[in-house]
Amino acid sequence: MKVKRLGISTGGTFVVLMNEDDAASLMMRKGDRVLLVKKDNSSVDAILDLSSGMLKKGQIGLFEEVYSALGVRNGEDIRVFPSEKPASLDYIRRKLEGKELSREEIRQIVNDITNNRLLDMEIAYFVSACYSNRMTLRETLYLTEAMISTGDTLKINRKVVADKHCIGGVAGNRTTMVIVPIVSSLGIVIPKTSSRAITSPAGTADTVEVLTHVDFSIKKLVNFIEKSNAFMVWGGSVNLAPADDKIIRVERPLSIDSEGQLLASILAKKKSVSSTHVLIDIPLGRGAKIESRIKAVRLKRKFEVLGKLLGMKIRCIITDGSQPIGNGIGPALEARDVLWLFERDDRRPLDLEEKGLMMSAHLINMTKNVSFKQALKMAQDSLESGKARDKFLEILKNQGAKITKSSQIKLAKFKSFVKAEKTGRVVGINNRVISLIARSAGAPFDKKAGIYLFKKKLDSVSEGDVLYEIFAESPSKLKYAEELASQNSGYTIR
Amino acid sequence: MKVKRLGISTGGTFVVLMNEDDAASLMMRKGDRVLLVKKDNSSVDAILDLSSGMLKKGQIGLFEEVYSALGVRNGEDIRVFPSEKPASLDYIRRKLEGKELSREEIRQIVNDITNNRLLDMEIAYFVSACYSNRMTLRETLYLTEAMISTGDTLKINRKVVADKHCIGGVAGNRTTMVIVPIVSSLGIVIPKTSSRAITSPAGTADTVEVLTHVDFSIKKLVNFIEKSNAFMVWGGSVNLAPADDKIIRVERPLSIDSEGQLLASILAKKKSVSSTHVLIDIPLGRGAKIESRIKAVRLKRKFEVLGKLLGMKIRCIITDGSQPIGNGIGPALEARDVLWLFERDDRRPLDLEEKGLMMSAHLINMTKNVSFKQALKMAQDSLESGKARDKFLEILKNQGAKITKSSQIKLAKFKSFVKAEKTGRVVGINNRVISLIARSAGAPFDKKAGIYLFKKKLDSVSEGDVLYEIFAESPSKLKYAEELASQNSGYTIR
Repeated sequence: MKVKRLGISTGGTFVVLMNEDDAASLMMRKGDRVLLVKKDNSSVDAILDLSSGMLKKGQIGLFEEVYSALGVRNGEDIRVFPSEKPASLDYIRRKLEGKELSREEIRQIVNDITNNRLLDMEIAYFVSACYSNRMTLRETLYLTEAMISTGDTLKINRKVVADKHCIGGVAGNRTTMVIVPIVSSLGIVIPKTSSRAITSPAGTADTVEVLTHVDFSIKKLVNFIEKSNAFMVWGGSVNLAPADDKIIRVERPLSIDSEGQLLASILAKKKSVSSTHVLIDIPLGRGAKIESRIKAVRLKRKFEVLGKLLGMKIRCIITDGSQPIGNGIGPALEARDVLWLFERDDRRPLDLEEKGLMMSAHLINMTKNVSFKQALKMAQDSLESGKARDKFLEILKNQGAKITKSSQIKLAKFKSFVKAEKTGRVVGINNRVISLIARSAGAPFDKKAGIYLFKKKLDSVSEGDVLYEIFAESPSKLKYAEELASQNSGYTIR
Repeated sequence: MKVKRLGISTGGTFVVLMNEDDAASLMMRKGDRVLLVKKDNSSVDAILDLSSGMLKKGQIGLFEEVYSALGVRNGEDIRVFPSEKPASLDYIRRKLEGKELSREEIRQIVNDITNNRLLDMEIAYFVSACYSNRMTLRETLYLTEAMISTGDTLKINRKVVADKHCIGGVAGNRTTMVIVPIVSSLGIVIPKTSSRAITSPAGTADTVEVLTHVDFSIKKLVNFIEKSNAFMVWGGSVNLAPADDKIIRVERPLSIDSEGQLLASILAKKKSVSSTHVLIDIPLGRGAKIESRIKAVRLKRKFEVLGKLLGMKIRCIITDGSQPIGNGIGPALEARDVLWLFERDDRRPLDLEEKGLMMSAHLINMTKNVSFKQALKMAQDSLESGKARDKFLEILKNQGAKITKSSQIKLAKFKSFVKAEKTGRVVGINNRVISLIARSAGAPFDKKAGIYLFKKKLDSVSEGDVLYEIFAESPSKLKYAEELASQNSGYTIR
């Protein structure tokens, strides 16, 4: 058949188009698998989709992914053979029917996802099978292993490699940027990869990026560890557990969050960078990701058991998720909070400092032969002596620092105050509402946009007091955020 | 944004492409819903997909469905607004979580499927939710009602409207073409829509099409009923329960067959043509669609209960599915069997005749005030007197007959005999294997291709006796079918 380049990408999956008559005469249907063979006998697997009218008889339409993988020219002749459906589709159906999958079956499914052999629709069946019929702990272990083995890994040859993760949902919660400098200043290796925002106004990678670069090759990361024991980069820049991103993409339309998938995703990424001791922060509270204590405790247990099976020491802490951490929300505003903290500026957010110290102490206690109390003292000393600050600047510099002082941070120029409508005490600040307002103001895409909180939980306020300030890059975005805030400020005052 | 026509169809769903930067600055992500507004303020809803590199800043790529629905020109300016995700996505997630859905929720989901507002991936979540968490009988009822109300209906103002359906899996089982003429010759209205083959070597619509046309408007169908009490057409030519086809398309990759979906699909199509008395044939046997008696009985019960709730009298019969019915398999070969039967030719397949008479008798017994024995006599009289044949020819003529005599049937010219490898008795003929061989020979796309069986179950055979003849339009297809038959003839001889 003659290649027709379609000039459109599918976002991953290898798909080709054929006209309906050609497909009928080849007895092939939408979703069938085909093998495309070039004259030199090199070949690529793809999935067939049908088109009516657009393609001439004998033409085969190639989406960009296939076009470049096969390396053909427009109009070139290729041979097309029907090929077998991947066995992973059978395994997925069996999981849908409620059966438990074996290590090999899960490995095959993850492998096919990684290699773009499944349609989004087919991955959706896998996700929903795991969601409706729950994954067993054993299946979750296999999923984690499969995710690790289908991606790149960062080999660090040390007995102790520390790491931390927060399961998210709390605005402004930039503990990573506090913990990594403190811990690594004490000689502990901590190779930290972080994500960008998906539904929040800033991911750790977005905030770090205000100050330095976050996108590096595995080789560079090894350098950073050798030189400074630590880095803070964007996980997406390295190919760790790539199946995970593809699964998350499919979970998005329904906002599904399957527990097995969450556990596997986090643990695979930690194991892929050779972590041995991992601290996991599970914020609990209204508007956070986990809103029930039972769920938090169940998650904690599963993390710990799976960690053991994977040869990692895991400690989970359930923390207060009932309000944002720090005062800035949005990349630049959060980066300023962190710089103030290391600069020991009076404006530094004490709740972020306290949480960062506490979590650092946990990691020190897990990895060194010291009590928690001693560990906390070590963390405090590092911060107060300036050792942590020096380490922070060293990490920024390794990664090509852009900004190193809080005074260099610029914020968006359209601003507006949101004020208290009554007098009383702040009893809660809903993370989800605050995040939505900050996003409406432009964060994380506009790095200088966001929110700065003047009042936190338990503060007394009088009617008319400023609760927070909104920053936006344009009057229209500011207005949009203001409108949302006027409907619901996110603050509960009693 | 400026319209760019992509020239590719999605197969239904309304999808637009945007470049990643544009989407980011609008805070939109893959799968988000957008409203496209033309200068004249007419608008269309669509789902956003992202593209890297292919689209310039400010361009929006329209797949054919959207392009023609919106009615724009290439390069035209349109406005793009974010819009809400359909509420049906929430309902689908709730079903995935194991909750029972309400009538209104199911109606909304089916409505969104019908109107191309959901991605295949999102429909897949619905299918798997119904599959893993089973639909309750109430949900199945709601699904049926929703499928009916989102499609066209054929209003027939009679107290009794007969209909029949076979849940399939048996090769050559063309009872419809026997029953419809017999029953309608006795004054019973029977508006019969049939499907084309999906995985079989011929659907009833494919076989009828050898003799006459099968593609008509609702208006024409009303005419046929007024004139002759009956028609035999392709269901796809009218827009009955259109959501069903879209759901089936998504079920295909995993060969999922959800019971609730099967029940709703069949009953919606019957109710849509005003049927009041429906006979359902559930063939049971190895290689048929239903292989276990427990399953067959459970299905029978559900059909009967749902029928009552929908105001239809339903009778289910569990029939022998352990071998093909009739001798011809493939459109032309099956059509010849049926013509022989009405012509009272000695070569007519007696098993098809017997089954057709028995099922006709059930329908007569259900709709007229006569015993089953009397009903059977009436059916036999109609067939033997030539009344049924006249009715058959009348129906063919109404629909624009192409062939009316068995002698006019032409078969494919490349032929080959498959012979018995041992002496004994035929104890079974696997429908699935026979269907696969007939399909490999070219059926149903090559109408003249297929298989003609010389031996049926319980026949004695000697080594070397002809079991069946394969017909194909080309030597290569014949060879392909022969190879399959040599691996497994489909016959069990003991």
